[in-house]
Amino acid sequence: MTVLILTSEQDVTADMVVAELSGAGVPVVRLDPADLPGPVALSGEYVHGAYRGHVSTGDRLVSTNGLRSIWVRRPGVPATRVAEPSVWLTEESAQALYGMLHSTGARWMNRPDAARRARHKPWQLRVAQCSGLPVPATLITTVPQAAREFAERFPDLVVKPVSGTHPQDPPRAVPTTRIAPDADFSAVAFGPTLLQRRIAKRADIRLTAVGDRLLAARKPAVPDADHVDVRFSPSTEPWQPVNVPPRIATSVHDYLRQAELAYGAFDFAEDADGIWWFLECNQSGQFGFIEMDTGQPIARTIAEWLARHEPDSTSRPVGPLRMTR
Amino acid sequence: MTVLILTSEQDVTADMVVAELSGAGVPVVRLDPADLPGPVALSGEYVHGAYRGHVSTGDRLVSTNGLRSIWVRRPGVPATRVAEPSVWLTEESAQALYGMLHSTGARWMNRPDAARRARHKPWQLRVAQCSGLPVPATLITTVPQAAREFAERFPDLVVKPVSGTHPQDPPRAVPTTRIAPDADFSAVAFGPTLLQRRIAKRADIRLTAVGDRLLAARKPAVPDADHVDVRFSPSTEPWQPVNVPPRIATSVHDYLRQAELAYGAFDFAEDADGIWWFLECNQSGQFGFIEMDTGQPIARTIAEWLARHEPDSTSRPVGPLRMTR
Repeated sequence: MTVLILTSEQDVTADMVVAELSGAGVPVVRLDPADLPGPVALSGEYVHGAYRGHVSTGDRLVSTNGLRSIWVRRPGVPATRVAEPSVWLTEESAQALYGMLHSTGARWMNRPDAARRARHKPWQLRVAQCSGLPVPATLITTVPQAAREFAERFPDLVVKPVSGTHPQDPPRAVPTTRIAPDADFSAVAFGPTLLQRRIAKRADIRLTAVGDRLLAARKPAVPDADHVDVRFSPSTEPWQPVNVPPRIATSVHDYLRQAELAYGAFDFAEDADGIWWFLECNQSGQFGFIEMDTGQPIARTIAEWLARHEPDSTSRPVGPLRMTR
Repeated sequence: MTVLILTSEQDVTADMVVAELSGAGVPVVRLDPADLPGPVALSGEYVHGAYRGHVSTGDRLVSTNGLRSIWVRRPGVPATRVAEPSVWLTEESAQALYGMLHSTGARWMNRPDAARRARHKPWQLRVAQCSGLPVPATLITTVPQAAREFAERFPDLVVKPVSGTHPQDPPRAVPTTRIAPDADFSAVAFGPTLLQRRIAKRADIRLTAVGDRLLAARKPAVPDADHVDVRFSPSTEPWQPVNVPPRIATSVHDYLRQAELAYGAFDFAEDADGIWWFLECNQSGQFGFIEMDTGQPIARTIAEWLARHEPDSTSRPVGPLRMTR
């Protein structure tokens, strides 16, 4: 039973996990969907009520029925390395590859449809609320008057993009910034704007969830309150491992269950009272920098999750994406 | 409690359903996401563990907590009617709108994530197999040798696109065509190809599923066997209502449950033995032409599904997209 990793060629984070899997003697096939068709080939057959297929790359060939898990790391867009790329060929290739992989009984980290839904920030806030996580008061709006009224109630505000990362290539992170309550909010009519009560934080928390395992790290905040975004903060303090409060652990497990995610990188802001405020959950968040600072075995934990055999895969219910083979 | 319809302005199919809803006195708001931001505005607030929001268009304003259902008909791409469209603004607007709508307890026809997954043809074939529907032997491949071997076993073949419709604007349907078993299959290496055993059909079947209601129609096939694709067939016979065999009904219900769809347009080919062979399920398939020919009340059935009140929405489990408000 093989682990399939979908990612681009240059991916040191994937390299860490591949090394763990190889060290444990687990067969791994790694491929980039951008190489289909061409170096990556596939074939799937539906005959007499049964399905069998295979995917090959270079000299490696794996039966889709022999997959134990699929890790969707940083896959390229299908059919983008062919001589004449087209939207149509990309669509055909994506449908063929992901449709076939969905037809297997393999476990996903993360399932593409769940991953896509999980990117919606407004939905994240609602799932966090429903999971019992503290969520800072937030407004998402295109209505200037709504923004003004919110700023009156919560004068200490930050503004963020709704969708997270600017979709240029390479992606550009847009920093979270403070905004004055008497700001001119008329421009929100031209694009949805996310306003959030600023948490006076004493630390940033990154909680990495891998299946049932939770690994949290903490980084003290810099005293200068203008630096609200840890990614742009001048702090040179390293991340340190920190215990996860039991109530937070329960809520995070609940969040992952609702979102149907096997992996999530949660960002919290810890305030002066020690409360962890939910900021976001990135279903494809990086973890290498945390592992480097803290020594927490995140790559190994992911490898263990990917390598795990289901207790009895044949007894699983026939249901969405959990079909028996 | 309001029904929200996401579709473009010119949509006679939506008009039919709106007329049914209005006739029954059910409040309806219809909007095109392409008009956000601008004519369509939104605002959502997450405060003290609760969520409340609203969407407005023209002089209509609807509370997202007051939505009973959302019909995703033919929505435009968000933010494409602004003065300066951009990928970034589209992403921000899509996240804001769909993220907020996902935060409501409204029922979806169909949920965007389920709809997206349901478009995968290889996955459709597998779900159909697992639901007990007869599926013609099918191969999806980029491997010429696999295509040749399949053609030897099943010499009477048709070839189809994997993904359905050519994504040009306006969309162009690619006809299903017969292919000789001694054809040169070397070109499949350049793009995934779907080969399927041809069903010698005596009729085409269109089964429209709306929640638990199944409405099937039948159109006799033309004798000329070269016309395998009903969309390009010269038949002038009208569609006629036909009863759904109980075994097919059970399987279709199972398919919809697995695919988490509230609406699906199933295409079958009926062979000389009366067997209905599954060809595909289009989660956004048209139904106007069937209603016109058969008089089947499909628009009214959709309106009834959209108008239905859940027996007790507050007792629903907190789960993916079924969150309590």
